Amino acid sequence: MRHITRKQLLDAPSDFRRNLVNSITGYKSLHLIGSQNRNGETNLAPFSQVFHIGATPPLIGILFRPHTVERHTLENILDTGYFTLNHVSSSFYKAAHQTAARYAVSEFKATGLEEVYLEDFPAPFVVPSQVKMGCYLVENQTLKVNDTVLVIGEIQHFWVAEKGLGFDGMLDLNVLDTVTVSGLDTYHIGKKLGRLSYPKPDQPIQEI
Amino acid sequence: MRHITRKQLLDAPSDFRRNLVNSITGYKSLHLIGSQNRNGETNLAPFSQVFHIGATPPLIGILFRPHTVERHTLENILDTGYFTLNHVSSSFYKAAHQTAARYAVSEFKATGLEEVYLEDFPAPFVVPSQVKMGCYLVENQTLKVNDTVLVIGEIQHFWVAEKGLGFDGMLDLNVLDTVTVSGLDTYHIGKKLGRLSYPKPDQPIQEI
Repeated sequence: MRHITRKQLLDAPSDFRRNLVNSITGYKSLHLIGSQNRNGETNLAPFSQVFHIGATPPLIGILFRPHTVERHTLENILDTGYFTLNHVSSSFYKAAHQTAARYAVSEFKATGLEEVYLEDFPAPFVVPSQVKMGCYLVENQTLKVNDTVLVIGEIQHFWVAEKGLGFDGMLDLNVLDTVTVSGLDTYHIGKKLGRLSYPKPDQPIQEI
Repeated sequence: MRHITRKQLLDAPSDFRRNLVNSITGYKSLHLIGSQNRNGETNLAPFSQVFHIGATPPLIGILFRPHTVERHTLENILDTGYFTLNHVSSSFYKAAHQTAARYAVSEFKATGLEEVYLEDFPAPFVVPSQVKMGCYLVENQTLKVNDTVLVIGEIQHFWVAEKGLGFDGMLDLNVLDTVTVSGLDTYHIGKKLGRLSYPKPDQPIQEI
């Protein structure tokens, strides 16, 4: 195996370090975040530092890069309190990637991804997304360790394509064609290996 | 599409809510965390709330459930400062799942996953893992919103199977056979759709 120390990583070219450390955690949870500013101008951008925080109440965490330059999505969330999380499908993952470009206009318009407002929720959803969540900001803090910003949102509304919701609440990400990202730019779909029974010390694991 | 409101989610059976909210963020970054207590007794457990925090220095975040009951991994990290992160491959994902059972002995022994110590790093690595990281605790805090515990570790050592490391630092997760998890119990491998060029407003996205 190849061994790389902390010092070698810090001495490596910044591209190498960025690619490695961004891909080192494995497959990441990709979402398009829809938001709008106080003037109703919309914004759409891809995020992969998105994670489950709790089920009761339903909380999602998102980590933003340091707020040292203009960050429309973060500013819109802090200003309005509302944002949407939208899964990416294989049919539009290239447009999803393209929303990260620095456009002067809304990324919805620029990339052709259609926006929609649902149930009077004050932030735009992505029409073709098979999983859509409307979230309200409940906490934000700047992590001392590197000035990244942790935003915690509570799910207010949730939409899923009917075929992808199991009777027990499990989403079937294969059926939903949900896309995952590694590093900054490499996209994948998932292929199920198995669903496993609850682990107990005295029982062998079984597929369920 | 099926629409579920916050209230419907909170009123739903707890199994349904737990399955849904744990699978709602999409594919998650699965890692086995190896640790040891002050007596050198080892522990191994699966975690999926693992995310990139920064590349310079190389920082990884892990979210732990509330520290209201005994949590060996968390306690070992807080006590010793050291832990390992190990990718899961399809050949041992069932054993990885089984490490979550409540064993009286080390999960390494109980599940047959072999442990190894590398470079005098004071926490055990998982022999068959194709990606192994030795991390040092740099920050921990309890999130007010639901008492989950955010641990931030800095990568001190990193090992990867040579075939999975690109010249530019990108890990090839397909080649490495890295496993991802959805919800609490459903495991997947990834299948690459494409790697895309840096997004710019005036240029079409290209596969690279």
